[in-house]
Amino acid sequence: MAHEEANLNSFAAVLGNDVAIKAYHDGNAPLFPDGTIIAALHYRFVPSEENNKAFGQTQSFVAGDPTNVQFMAKDSKTSASTGGWGFGHFSPAGTLGGRAARDLRPCHAKASRDSVFTRYSS
Amino acid sequence: MAHEEANLNSFAAVLGNDVAIKAYHDGNAPLFPDGTIIAALHYRFVPSEENNKAFGQTQSFVAGDPTNVQFMAKDSKTSASTGGWGFGHFSPAGTLGGRAARDLRPCHAKASRDSVFTRYSS
Repeated sequence: MAHEEANLNSFAAVLGNDVAIKAYHDGNAPLFPDGTIIAALHYRFVPSEENNKAFGQTQSFVAGDPTNVQFMAKDSKTSASTGGWGFGHFSPAGTLGGRAARDLRPCHAKASRDSVFTRYSS
Repeated sequence: MAHEEANLNSFAAVLGNDVAIKAYHDGNAPLFPDGTIIAALHYRFVPSEENNKAFGQTQSFVAGDPTNVQFMAKDSKTSASTGGWGFGHFSPAGTLGGRAARDLRPCHAKASRDSVFTRYSS
């Protein structure tokens, strides 16, 4: 899970396939093996008036409208020119967006662990 | 997913079993059937210095230390006296806490849809 403020204002659920989870468990996560797939389901980060009413104070935020689903998949051969990662950006309607490699790669390249921001919380 | 500010300062991943997800999909979620199990994995909501450094500004929050795992399970017969829901509260070490029915029931009873706060985001 992750929340980004500023212009993103996002609430993300981050999922990994078996290869990704094994890399986290084994402590290899600074370098993910080929076959790793990580997905980020992004929503707006919105206050919940309903929950705030139940709690009697302003404190509750939930996932609002979906904004996109982004994938990164590790293949050191076919994606050699982008750090071993292929990127995909899908709209809520399921259409592939043009932002994928162009926009995602430069930002993820700044993450200190093999272009992956998400750490594992047990 | 949910974030609570104030004294909770929590970041929650909320999971449902097949019965729960079916009730959400079918639009029956205001009343969940017997057999529904919903789990909330709670963590501290903490800033990520590492991600903020990558983004070049303060914007990023992630799941910190785990605080508890809470369950609610629907059984209209055995849990008739608590609105049809049984509650469980587990520490990160896996021990069952005493807070379960005593503390969880009164708060969840304020939720407008069958004691369940979480809505479904598709």
